[in-house]
This record gives sequence, structure tokens and C-alpha cells, in this order.
Amino acid sequence: VIPEPLRLEGNRVLLLDQTLLPEREVWIEVRDADTMASAIARLQVRGAPAIGIAAALVLAVEAGRGGNVSERVARLEQAGRVLRASRPTAVNLAWAVDRVLDAARDAARAPGAAAGSSAPGSSAAASDEGAARLAARVRQEAEAIWREDLEASRAMAAHGAALFPNERRFLTHCNTGSLATGGGGTALGVLLELHRRRPDGIEVWATETRPLLQGARLTAWELQRSGVPARLIPDSAAAHVILRDRIQAVLVGADRIARNGDTANKIGTLGLALAAREAGIPLIVVAPSSTLDPALPDGSGIAIEERDPSEVTSIRGVRTAPEGMEARNPAFDVTPGRLVAAIVTERGVRRGPTYDLGSV
Amino acid sequence: VIPEPLRLEGNRVLLLDQTLLPEREVWIEVRDADTMASAIARLQVRGAPAIGIAAALVLAVEAGRGGNVSERVARLEQAGRVLRASRPTAVNLAWAVDRVLDAARDAARAPGAAAGSSAPGSSAAASDEGAARLAARVRQEAEAIWREDLEASRAMAAHGAALFPNERRFLTHCNTGSLATGGGGTALGVLLELHRRRPDGIEVWATETRPLLQGARLTAWELQRSGVPARLIPDSAAAHVILRDRIQAVLVGADRIARNGDTANKIGTLGLALAAREAGIPLIVVAPSSTLDPALPDGSGIAIEERDPSEVTSIRGVRTAPEGMEARNPAFDVTPGRLVAAIVTERGVRRGPTYDLGSV
Repeated sequence: VIPEPLRLEGNRVLLLDQTLLPEREVWIEVRDADTMASAIARLQVRGAPAIGIAAALVLAVEAGRGGNVSERVARLEQAGRVLRASRPTAVNLAWAVDRVLDAARDAARAPGAAAGSSAPGSSAAASDEGAARLAARVRQEAEAIWREDLEASRAMAAHGAALFPNERRFLTHCNTGSLATGGGGTALGVLLELHRRRPDGIEVWATETRPLLQGARLTAWELQRSGVPARLIPDSAAAHVILRDRIQAVLVGADRIARNGDTANKIGTLGLALAAREAGIPLIVVAPSSTLDPALPDGSGIAIEERDPSEVTSIRGVRTAPEGMEARNPAFDVTPGRLVAAIVTERGVRRGPTYDLGSV
Repeated sequence: VIPEPLRLEGNRVLLLDQTLLPEREVWIEVRDADTMASAIARLQVRGAPAIGIAAALVLAVEAGRGGNVSERVARLEQAGRVLRASRPTAVNLAWAVDRVLDAARDAARAPGAAAGSSAPGSSAAASDEGAARLAARVRQEAEAIWREDLEASRAMAAHGAALFPNERRFLTHCNTGSLATGGGGTALGVLLELHRRRPDGIEVWATETRPLLQGARLTAWELQRSGVPARLIPDSAAAHVILRDRIQAVLVGADRIARNGDTANKIGTLGLALAAREAGIPLIVVAPSSTLDPALPDGSGIAIEERDPSEVTSIRGVRTAPEGMEARNPAFDVTPGRLVAAIVTERGVRRGPTYDLGSV
């Protein structure tokens, strides 16, 4: 029902342009890393897991573009720098780039590859063979990242759904479904799994998620297509709705998680966490383990992307504020680990310090 | 610099249409209570104090429209019912209507007035005189409500500004300035007063205030025109900004305040209060005493207006969610009194139970 947001076809990556959904389903063609970096920066593909996969896939395309082994490695390293810089907060992007580059360097070091790239007397055939082997290895790694993400989505859906055998009323933020991943989902994946297990059993309240309205445009679209009873709310209504409509859990994704559970996620998550604490319900973070950043002891070191103020002073091209009005547009906030009841990854559930999840 | 949002000219009320600001300054003419009720419901005039004044002014017009004393009283009572029903949450509306109706009934009971309305043998001249006296009394009361609101705004600005002799960084929500009142302001009035006292001394962060963007459209406009350094933020960024930009106080208006301090105000206020508590800064409510509802022991009895879902699924006429998506659109939430550090009225400052305002 929900299309995967990306495809790898020969020497191009196809992206479902998420800035045009839900009105138009337009696929754009990406043939190099520069184009992909700009598609990521403009959120034509977005969602921490999805941008990691998109980066890996375009590196597979770059690896196949010709040249000897050392030329390809150099091109991939340059491409990796461009891709990594396109968005600073989600760690999955850097993780996927590093993983593909490691695979490329590994292939470059394999017997025969080095001969192809640097030994002056080596045959053209050996050179071609080494380069082709490197390209195949990179493509294999990119496809593995994508496949593992789909498997992680399935595992997170199962682990997360098991937390809520009876609960009916859930709130979610931004888009964390098929469109945000390689085709599965994190927080929204858990909700869709609950709906599969208990049709007519759950209801979802989705925040519209200003400024770019991923909730109104993308999550609403996925929920509708999946037949889940759902309603949209303004972001500002979340605390009221959590308390008055007796929401039983808030489920969100993540862009980077520090060792102490501090979680960078879409701007507004921190406010949801404070409302959940006031209501005595759990905030659950659902994210693949590639979102964990073991290098970070806590969230204070997470770079918060500040996006163009025009995203705040206009909405889908319509100006909302007076000409010349300044705006701030932080794309993420950091929720302290003490406000996170549990983190669900493909490996299982890690419970947080504040809430007793035995009751949910 | 900022126009008063309403005028009384002869037998008509002029309203600055706040749904068209800031792009267009269009004045609409209102000659009867039905038209005013629909202008209030559509938010062409909005803000708890302003809609009370608008209702009082149109009652003055209705009182002048002819008929004998008892006909006029009956017409005013019918008009009062229509006006009161136009928006349920703000108590100032019902308060202003009641006050004008009491004045009308008072005038109807005065010697001479009764003769004009009911005694069969009374002269037409006496009848005209009683009706004219009633109309004058109603107009006087409506103008008193307006004048007192302007005086209250001045007093609130002074009381509120005195709380912040040194603070620089403030966050506010929705629009609580000239446009929300009879021309002064509540929370925004305090901030403008601080700016007058300390030019270059304060900075304001204003939430855009979805769904109807009173912050982006109206507060931004008032701040710009007043030369206050300010920036707009998405509602969802408030918790992040309060903590990261070290906001020192959150100032909001109110639509109805219960005896225990529970405060109904624009949707999103509750979330701001929770963020302020997390940051250890005060949430200050600024509202004229007409906003206090002594009949209510606490906020549980406050009716929350639920507005048209299309305000959530579209923005300024542009659709944001897929066709058929349901939405919830509560216009207000209730912040518990325990989260309100102080309530500033024209009579002074009442400190709340949670924060020690001695430090601010």
C-alpha cells in the first residue's frame, strides 16, 4: 500500500519526492552524490534511516562510474564528505557512509585490487577486474544496509507492539513510517503493526509537525492508506490532547541517541516528553541501532541543524509573517534520557530510568 | 503605530479584519449583533478583551435602532444571547454582554421609562424620551467598558513591567497586544512597555500559534511596528528555545481564569507552562480582571471551543493534509494554577504557588 521511498535501478537511484506528497507522487532520478546531497538537504528524501540508505545507494552508483581502484576510492571518499555534510544531526547518515567507505577500502586492499590501481606494470584487465570487484563490493554493502533496515523495521515493530497488548490511544510526531526508512518504519511501524494485530483496536493522534508538515502530509497519508483510525492535531494541541483524550503512549523516532538515552529527534519531541511526564504516560523512542551514537556520553554534544527561516515564515509557499520578520528554525531538539521510558531497537527494548514499563 | 482594532462611528462598529492581516488592512462595517456574532466566530475580531468590547459596542448600536423601551430591552436580550453563543470560552464576552444588559434593564426601570414602554395612556414624547435615555445609557456603558479596558492595559503594563527590571529574553504566545484588546494589550502590552522603558533592553521570541497563526500574522506585525527585536518560532520549537536560548519568562494572556488560578488560554499555553517549569522560569498570565471567573472553583468546568477541523488540514487556504483526513481543533487548553507563577491584572500582581517571583 505504501511505496518504498527509494529504488536502485541500474546506475541510478529513484527517490519518491517527499516534498510533493500527498498531492503528487513524483519520482526523481539521482545519478551522483552531489544531487543526492542536495535532495537530502531539501528533504526530498528524509527520515534518519532513509537518508542513510539513500546515501549508501548513491555511493553504489558512484562506485560503478568508471576509473581504476584508487580513483574510485578517492571519488567515494569525496562523495562521502559531501553526503555527510548534507544534514548534520542524524547519525545514520554518517554511519551508512562510513560503512560503505570501509567496504570500499577493504575491497581496494584485497589481493589484485592494489595491482590494478598502482603497480605500473599491471595489466589493464587486472585493473578492470579490481575496480569491478570494488564496485560490486560497495553495491553489496549498500544493499545490505537497506535489507538490514527492512529487517530492523520488522523486528522493532514486533518488539514495540509487544509493549502494548491492550492500549488503544497513541500519539505520534513527524513521520516515522515507510517513507522515513527503507520501507518499514520505526515508531509508525509499531503503530501499523498494532493495527495489523488488532484491527479496530487502536487510534492514532498525529501532530502536523511544523514547519514542514511531515505529520500532516506524510504520516496522515500512510495512516489513511493503512486504514488506521487517525486524526491530525496542531503541534500546540499535543499537551491538551494527551491529557484530555487520555493518550496512553507517545511513540517517536530518533535521529541520534547518546549513551545516556538523550535523544535528538524532530523539533517538538521535547515538548511531547514533558506532556507525557505530566500525564504519567510513557514516551517511547523507536529507532534502529544505527541511531545509537556510542561516541556521545550525553546529548549536549549533538549538533542541531538550523534550517532556513523561510520555512517558518511561509507554509507551502504561502507567506504567513510580515516581510522582514526574523525566525528561528531548529530542526531537532534533545529530549533528556530521564524522560524516555524505553528505547526500542531491532535488538529489543531498553527501559529508561523514569517510568515503569511493566504496566504498559 | 498600531491601530485600535475597532471603532464606534455613529450607528456602526468598524472592525479591522484580523483574518486578513498583515497583508491587508481592511475595515469591515458591523450594524447589528448577528453580523458581529459571525465576525467574532470567524475571528475577524479576536482576543478575549477585544471581543467583549466589540459585543458591547454593537449592543450600543442595537440600543439606538428604534422601538420603545421594552422593545429595545427585548432586542438587546436577544442580541446578547447571539453574541454570548458566538464563542464559549472567553468569559470577557459574557461579562461585557451582562454588564451592558444590566445597564439597559436599569435604564428601563428608571422613572419615566416604564411609562413610555407599557402604560397605555402615556404620551409618545415620554416614550421617545425613555427609549433615548436607554440608548444613551447603553452607549455610555459600552464606552466605559472600552475606556476601562484601555486603562486596565496601562495598569497591567506597569505592574507587569515592574516584575522584570533586568530580564532580557521573553517568549510569548498567540496575540495579546493592541489587536487583542481595546487598543492596549495584556502580555504583549507588558513586553511593549518593557521595550519603551529599556530600548535595546529586551528581545522577544513569538510562537507562530497554529492553526490560525495569530503569532506569525499579528504579534509579529505589532512587534515589528514597535521596533522590538523579535523572532518567530514554530510552536513545536518552544521547549527547545526556552531551554537553549535561556528564555527568562513566558508571558501569555488568558480567556478565563478560575478561582484556583487554572487558566484557559490559546491552545499551546499548557505546553509552554510545562516547558517553563522544566526550565525553572516563570509563566506569567496577564489579563484584565474581567477574565477572572469567580463562579468557577477550578478549570475543569471550562468549556473548550472545538473549531472547524479544516483550520488544521489547511493553512491560509492551502491544503496540507490528504483529502478526508480527520482533525481535532481545540482552540484553548487549561493550564493548572500550580504552573502559573503570577497573574497580573490591572489591580496588581497575584503570585502563584509554585515559583518564587521574588527572584524575577
